[in-house]
Amino acid sequence: MKIAAFGEVMMRLTPPEYLLLEQTKELRFTFTGTGVNILSNLAHFGCQTSLITNLPENRLGEAAKANIRQLGIQDQWIGTFGGHIGSYFAEMGFGPRPTQVTYQNRRNSSFGMSDASCYDFERLVDELDLVHICGISLSLTEQTREAALTLAKLAHEKGKKVCFDFNFRPSLNETNGVAFMREQYEKILPYCDLVFGSQRDLTELLGLSLNETKEESQFEELVRRFMQTYSISHFAGTFRQGEGTKHYLAGFLFDTKNYVQAAPREIVNLDRIGAGDGFAAGILLGISEAWPLIDTVEFATANGVLAHTIQGDVPLTTRKQVKHVMEQPTVDLIR
Amino acid sequence: MKIAAFGEVMMRLTPPEYLLLEQTKELRFTFTGTGVNILSNLAHFGCQTSLITNLPENRLGEAAKANIRQLGIQDQWIGTFGGHIGSYFAEMGFGPRPTQVTYQNRRNSSFGMSDASCYDFERLVDELDLVHICGISLSLTEQTREAALTLAKLAHEKGKKVCFDFNFRPSLNETNGVAFMREQYEKILPYCDLVFGSQRDLTELLGLSLNETKEESQFEELVRRFMQTYSISHFAGTFRQGEGTKHYLAGFLFDTKNYVQAAPREIVNLDRIGAGDGFAAGILLGISEAWPLIDTVEFATANGVLAHTIQGDVPLTTRKQVKHVMEQPTVDLIR
Amino acid sequence: MKIAAFGEVMMRLTPPEYLLLEQTKELRFTFTGTGVNILSNLAHFGCQTSLITNLPENRLGEAAKANIRQLGIQDQWIGTFGGHIGSYFAEMGFGPRPTQVTYQNRRNSSFGMSDASCYDFERLVDELDLVHICGISLSLTEQTREAALTLAKLAHEKGKKVCFDFNFRPSLNETNGVAFMREQYEKILPYCDLVFGSQRDLTELLGLSLNETKEESQFEELVRRFMQTYSISHFAGTFRQGEGTKHYLAGFLFDTKNYVQAAPREIVNLDRIGAGDGFAAGILLGISEAWPLIDTVEFATANGVLAHTIQGDVPLTTRKQVKHVMEQPTVDLIR
Amino acid sequence: MKIAAFGEVMMRLTPPEYLLLEQTKELRFTFTGTGVNILSNLAHFGCQTSLITNLPENRLGEAAKANIRQLGIQDQWIGTFGGHIGSYFAEMGFGPRPTQVTYQNRRNSSFGMSDASCYDFERLVDELDLVHICGISLSLTEQTREAALTLAKLAHEKGKKVCFDFNFRPSLNETNGVAFMREQYEKILPYCDLVFGSQRDLTELLGLSLNETKEESQFEELVRRFMQTYSISHFAGTFRQGEGTKHYLAGFLFDTKNYVQAAPREIVNLDRIGAGDGFAAGILLGISEAWPLIDTVEFATANGVLAHTIQGDVPLTTRKQVKHVMEQPTVDLIR
Amino acid sequence: MKIAAFGEVMMRLTPPEYLLLEQTKELRFTFTGTGVNILSNLAHFGCQTSLITNLPENRLGEAAKANIRQLGIQDQWIGTFGGHIGSYFAEMGFGPRPTQVTYQNRRNSSFGMSDASCYDFERLVDELDLVHICGISLSLTEQTREAALTLAKLAHEKGKKVCFDFNFRPSLNETNGVAFMREQYEKILPYCDLVFGSQRDLTELLGLSLNETKEESQFEELVRRFMQTYSISHFAGTFRQGEGTKHYLAGFLFDTKNYVQAAPREIVNLDRIGAGDGFAAGILLGISEAWPLIDTVEFATANGVLAHTIQGDVPLTTRKQVKHVMEQPTVDLIR
Amino acid sequence: MKIAAFGEVMMRLTPPEYLLLEQTKELRFTFTGTGVNILSNLAHFGCQTSLITNLPENRLGEAAKANIRQLGIQDQWIGTFGGHIGSYFAEMGFGPRPTQVTYQNRRNSSFGMSDASCYDFERLVDELDLVHICGISLSLTEQTREAALTLAKLAHEKGKKVCFDFNFRPSLNETNGVAFMREQYEKILPYCDLVFGSQRDLTELLGLSLNETKEESQFEELVRRFMQTYSISHFAGTFRQGEGTKHYLAGFLFDTKNYVQAAPREIVNLDRIGAGDGFAAGILLGISEAWPLIDTVEFATANGVLAHTIQGDVPLTTRKQVKHVMEQPTVDLIR
Repeated sequence: MKIAAFGEVMMRLTPPEYLLLEQTKELRFTFTGTGVNILSNLAHFGCQTSLITNLPENRLGEAAKANIRQLGIQDQWIGTFGGHIGSYFAEMGFGPRPTQVTYQNRRNSSFGMSDASCYDFERLVDELDLVHICGISLSLTEQTREAALTLAKLAHEKGKKVCFDFNFRPSLNETNGVAFMREQYEKILPYCDLVFGSQRDLTELLGLSLNETKEESQFEELVRRFMQTYSISHFAGTFRQGEGTKHYLAGFLFDTKNYVQAAPREIVNLDRIGAGDGFAAGILLGISEAWPLIDTVEFATANGVLAHTIQGDVPLTTRKQVKHVMEQPTVDLIR
Repeated sequence: MKIAAFGEVMMRLTPPEYLLLEQTKELRFTFTGTGVNILSNLAHFGCQTSLITNLPENRLGEAAKANIRQLGIQDQWIGTFGGHIGSYFAEMGFGPRPTQVTYQNRRNSSFGMSDASCYDFERLVDELDLVHICGISLSLTEQTREAALTLAKLAHEKGKKVCFDFNFRPSLNETNGVAFMREQYEKILPYCDLVFGSQRDLTELLGLSLNETKEESQFEELVRRFMQTYSISHFAGTFRQGEGTKHYLAGFLFDTKNYVQAAPREIVNLDRIGAGDGFAAGILLGISEAWPLIDTVEFATANGVLAHTIQGDVPLTTRKQVKHVMEQPTVDLIR
Repeated sequence: MKIAAFGEVMMRLTPPEYLLLEQTKELRFTFTGTGVNILSNLAHFGCQTSLITNLPENRLGEAAKANIRQLGIQDQWIGTFGGHIGSYFAEMGFGPRPTQVTYQNRRNSSFGMSDASCYDFERLVDELDLVHICGISLSLTEQTREAALTLAKLAHEKGKKVCFDFNFRPSLNETNGVAFMREQYEKILPYCDLVFGSQRDLTELLGLSLNETKEESQFEELVRRFMQTYSISHFAGTFRQGEGTKHYLAGFLFDTKNYVQAAPREIVNLDRIGAGDGFAAGILLGISEAWPLIDTVEFATANGVLAHTIQGDVPLTTRKQVKHVMEQPTVDLIR
Repeated sequence: MKIAAFGEVMMRLTPPEYLLLEQTKELRFTFTGTGVNILSNLAHFGCQTSLITNLPENRLGEAAKANIRQLGIQDQWIGTFGGHIGSYFAEMGFGPRPTQVTYQNRRNSSFGMSDASCYDFERLVDELDLVHICGISLSLTEQTREAALTLAKLAHEKGKKVCFDFNFRPSLNETNGVAFMREQYEKILPYCDLVFGSQRDLTELLGLSLNETKEESQFEELVRRFMQTYSISHFAGTFRQGEGTKHYLAGFLFDTKNYVQAAPREIVNLDRIGAGDGFAAGILLGISEAWPLIDTVEFATANGVLAHTIQGDVPLTTRKQVKHVMEQPTVDLIR
Repeated sequence: MKIAAFGEVMMRLTPPEYLLLEQTKELRFTFTGTGVNILSNLAHFGCQTSLITNLPENRLGEAAKANIRQLGIQDQWIGTFGGHIGSYFAEMGFGPRPTQVTYQNRRNSSFGMSDASCYDFERLVDELDLVHICGISLSLTEQTREAALTLAKLAHEKGKKVCFDFNFRPSLNETNGVAFMREQYEKILPYCDLVFGSQRDLTELLGLSLNETKEESQFEELVRRFMQTYSISHFAGTFRQGEGTKHYLAGFLFDTKNYVQAAPREIVNLDRIGAGDGFAAGILLGISEAWPLIDTVEFATANGVLAHTIQGDVPLTTRKQVKHVMEQPTVDLIR
Repeated sequence: MKIAAFGEVMMRLTPPEYLLLEQTKELRFTFTGTGVNILSNLAHFGCQTSLITNLPENRLGEAAKANIRQLGIQDQWIGTFGGHIGSYFAEMGFGPRPTQVTYQNRRNSSFGMSDASCYDFERLVDELDLVHICGISLSLTEQTREAALTLAKLAHEKGKKVCFDFNFRPSLNETNGVAFMREQYEKILPYCDLVFGSQRDLTELLGLSLNETKEESQFEELVRRFMQTYSISHFAGTFRQGEGTKHYLAGFLFDTKNYVQAAPREIVNLDRIGAGDGFAAGILLGISEAWPLIDTVEFATANGVLAHTIQGDVPLTTRKQVKHVMEQPTVDLIR
């Protein structure tokens, strides 16, 4: 199965050792993005993956491509357009001090300026089996919105699986209101098969109401209604729970018939950015290999928890590592 | 309000990543000191601040001054004298292993060798509104003792606020006994308005006795007596509490009428050196802007807790960050 | 004399030890820009300096400001506007391999988006004695063009010195042709007193012709004509000469009566970016202190040569260092 | 008392800051090995120590020797043989992610290729008082097996103390089965005085059975039987206990008459590799100075816990540090 | 044209900033090898390239593969076998101090232990157009010798181009004498089309004699004789010339009719390891695209000179960079 | 032959990559001093060496001792006294920019405060064969002056060789005038056998006059007179010559009968601090092994030149490396 993702490449710049920007003259730099994260993790699981994006035709674009190849992602669908890569600075938090992300000019990036005409979608879609599209594309620019919709429609028409991730960020949509964004989501959802999201996405963004009165079945009924409306085959996401200073992650997964939930796992946090993409990669692996639902969500949850323990956005876990943690959770040294 | 501090500048040398001195060939270096710490934090809160000290007239003195300016502190009252900056090495602890500080020749520093005649106190005092003096000055050398007393007296006479921090370190006073040191503290306290200290400072150093029999009011009565003796307007400090491996910080604050205490906050410790200066900066901000006592002590406590999560001595928090932690304590990622 | 500069702040990201972007995960970062460079060097010479620019109101803007203060530049005229700082990557060359600079989105920066209305020029100009404006401002955006012209005109009208640097970069002016750019330069030059430039700027950009037939006096006649046309008081620049693998730098300087040239000095190149700003700072120092022309140009040339031996764009030399190199050129170790 | 150890020197390569091998271009490198670890710790306790091993006669061998001297170990018994040092990569774990060790060609190392004829054991043994031999020597190669047995026999015959550490690693013994390995252990044990091991070593490796029915005395009876069989004077080891996410360490120690156990201490884990060697060093110190058993095991346990908080394999604690942690466990900053 | 190379992957460990191994605790690590170097450079020139080798199935093997993909080389023909990667330490020289390379166990590596049966040569050869084989394979082990000969024969029989690099290292052949090695070279040469070598390889290793008496045509006659003997289509190599402290590189290239030599270019040396591979990549590019001989050798020489200015073994130049240096050799800053 | 040196240990702090103190937050730190440098080099040549000094009894003193052991120097004569190590910052120069050394409080160091009573000279001298004393000891403090004289006298009386290095630094003797210093040198010279110095030391410091009129024999006659006055057996030093931007080093050496001079060698400068100590170590090696004078001075000169190419003060060359450079000066890569 050939899995592709459509999405931006960002440069992440991180001060070492929990330092603040003011405290250092050195930064660690990597390339990231929802598509990069999910594909890299799938490649580490042994899947064939390919990124659909545009990068500037300069030294930085070349460095980004080299980094993407290193992650195990094929680069043949990465075009060149524009002259800029969006970037962000991550000042890593510690204890009660939250991690602080500062974005630098995301909208003017090569990806942000590229509309559908900048890609050869016709040819790409023929070669892929499943394409992941991130909701950020709907928020970023007029061009990425158009490109995402074109790609989703085309893939759907050609009988390819479309995976969509709500990933709604109010901060990216201050000018376009919720009503406008809802319209965009409603346009793309009919083309989608697998969707990642949360209860809040369905109620606050799509405006669905909680009908069921019994609290324990409210959520399930809501999701069922949503899935039927848009003919969604799978819907997945995570619950985060807190208990004092302890935090837990538990994934859930619906197919058209069943609903399963993983046992919660404690989160120990080294770098939580991108951890959601680790969960998504786990779900995609299980679905693409037709695992039982419960195995899929358990694996995805363990992978999401591991993704919190890896520096940077990109989850680099292998199947062996995830299974080791699931089967021998108390081993702290492998040799 | 123009806030100044009188105090030493030290160079701090820290091995990276919890390494011991023997384990590394590289050190991170910064400039620090109680005055530097408090003023830098106040500058990050938006106050106008200025350091009163002397540095050597050489490359190291210039680097120190550049660093102080970077922290937001004005350098126009930093003179040159002598040829040495005191330094200390901090081998960062981990879990049960304590952080180990090793001082290098603090007394022979430019600051340590400077007496009152090395400063233009007359002119400085006219321009400032509040001056912070650290108790270390009374312990360090004959020269710093004389300079601190001269400055406190002058500022008091000219109607400027004097803030004093007990900061009594037995290790710096092995030759001068407690009786001698008590005399020094008694000399400076009549000139002071705001004082930072602890119950132990009042009993063991100043020799005040606990009169009140009811334990819950003993401390308050003791502080009241102390404040009245020296006409102190505000007295502040912190309680540290432990509960298993968990530690909590709670600030207290007296004005001439009221006594308030903040709700304890859990400490997660990245670097505790200088955290007390974060608390002091919070108190000074609230008092200089005439906030309600309880708001002041709550803010100062939150700031002190945040200071534990920042590498190095110097608390670099902004008002926005402190308020964010107070209002949304569970958010661990801001973007 | 209070010297200000109007100009952009850029973030420079440099791989360590001559590595290429592909070869490293770590970058050194600093803040730079023509104005930053010249002012920092003047501040290291003991002058009072202030930068006029806008930065984003976020963590990166704050880090940039802290860095600028560290360099000795006052930050009271740095406003906040927009959300982006232009950046560039410098892959340092070695021997025949040239240094490769890759810009990232310079035009959408806080500075690039700020027109005259984003600054309080009226108030600023009253407080300054000399303002430096870089030609980059005329090329960057419509907004910076307008702001630069407004500032130059205002300063000229209020009797303040205006220093202008041609700094013409064809690569920044691919859409606007030379004719358009000539017009902009012709608009600003009548307000200028001191100008930095080269023969090529006068002939190719301004379109002046070489009239004099004797080659040795061609250049001088050309400059005289230019200076008289725009009532320029000083014109300065550098000649670069090569002789095999050796390179030499020699500055020249005109006032309304005289023309002097420095003895050429050999260049040993650690980082040549920003070295021209070192020469400019030397000239501005000599003129602001009314040194003899020849002393000025000799000092500026020596400083320009030293600037090639300092990492980063920002020349950090002191008077003492420049004089040491001029007086004791063979000493390679000072202790 | 002159303490020697016979064992391999390995190079350890560790990515900084919990990064994975794929995520970094930089590694921290140190030299390690059971013998190195124990001797270095004993040297830090003030003992005279010397390592018996072979290293390649090249730049890497010289660097290894320099590092060993730095640790306080004498290098006069380090010979040269072969051309290779075994190495391992340690990708440091975090939270649920275990530390991953990857070995590189341990068996072909200078140590692995050296048999008894490569050492001047006769002379060495005369000069030492106690020699430590690690069980790894029995597993590594035919050559190290032969050398270890020769040395143990010789030392025993000359009346020197022999200390032996089971350190049985199934992964190093996949080709040789347990039966073969048992034979080797049975050969060396008659020469040994002090032994480090666990219940599993006695039952699974040596094949002793648990005779006693009462669970609380089973272990003691088993050890007594083992000690009598081989005339062992001291047997020591540790229990690790878990309680939720908390882990505890408690040492035990037998002499020919008594059995003591230390109070469990909580483990906070920075780097657990080599922590067992910290415990062993503590036991050897107490025995070599004839401390009371309980003091010995308490000290060794505290030292083992401290070893978990130090980067790298080599425990670098001093007596002062261990005693400080035992006497003032709540102090987190020493100055 | 699909270009493959058969060869070892080594790990290179380099102290930073010209430090010796004793002087640092940090190493930069990369993966290298003749095949890796040539293919990476060709990939940067835009060619499709693939490495034929074996790596261990562990974390280090995975990291090596990731690094190889980053370099632009496809990894589908990299198998897993054995458990070790050869490594070398490069202590970088400076001025008269030579660079010191220390190898660690090259022969026991996954590549060194793999014979022809460990590769699916039949399938590979069908898919490739040209395969590069390094002479090191003939020296390393019995297994690599056999694999190299098998591959060369098979490729030749299937009508694919075989490129061979003498790369004779006496230090790797201390046990096998020159006579034995000559036999191996004589076995492989009949299958080869393009060969890289020097006069010394032909005379000292193959034992050809210099027949021609006129010195200027001796070399050409020798090469012609060699090429005819083995039906070689192209023979290339470099001359290194010294003149005081200056060094020059000039490539030569023969096809069946012509002999051309490039103008010598001065070498400025940052890291000379791997520079010969840069020359080879340039020659392969020109030949694979059927450039005129003289253009090919000029490009290859310029590329070889550039390779001396890049850290590490792997030449990372692009066509654009090489051409820039050829066309504008005096430009030292591109922006 | 057991060689000892009496001298201070200093901590050297160096910014990486030619950065200035203002430009970095990281420093490389090492321990150095004339005695450390010479002994370490002799240890690398295979001699048994031991340092006579005092260090503080704290973490920094322990780290210094570990570093000294790493260098190959025995630490059994290093005592503890006082609480401070002198330090210096080296901002590395580049091209015309000189290296800038800034000292920090050298006189108050443990060594500076130690007089003869702080050492067990009686016992030490019995065990050593040759002791090196640096002229810095005569300048530093009253205490070091006294200790150096005591040690020289004692060693001389016990028939041990005394080696003395003029090393006169006017900057360390601003308060004591030349007359006072001459007296000190005159006191110690009668106890010395081997002396390192220059013509200037003999004329300006000792006040000897140039008698001989023929310039070519002036120097020789002067040295002969000096050697006879104080019964010196060997006198050695270096000439530095410049020719444009090229620099050359040539050693000279006198014994009681002959005078030899080495052929000048070009200096390529990575770090010139401590290079003179490399020359001295070479001379001491030759004399202690009774080499021919010319071999000694050639080796010492080559070693001095190599010492310029090694980072840090401490020359770490081996005999093999020096000989390689002498015999194969054009080889730039050893593998």
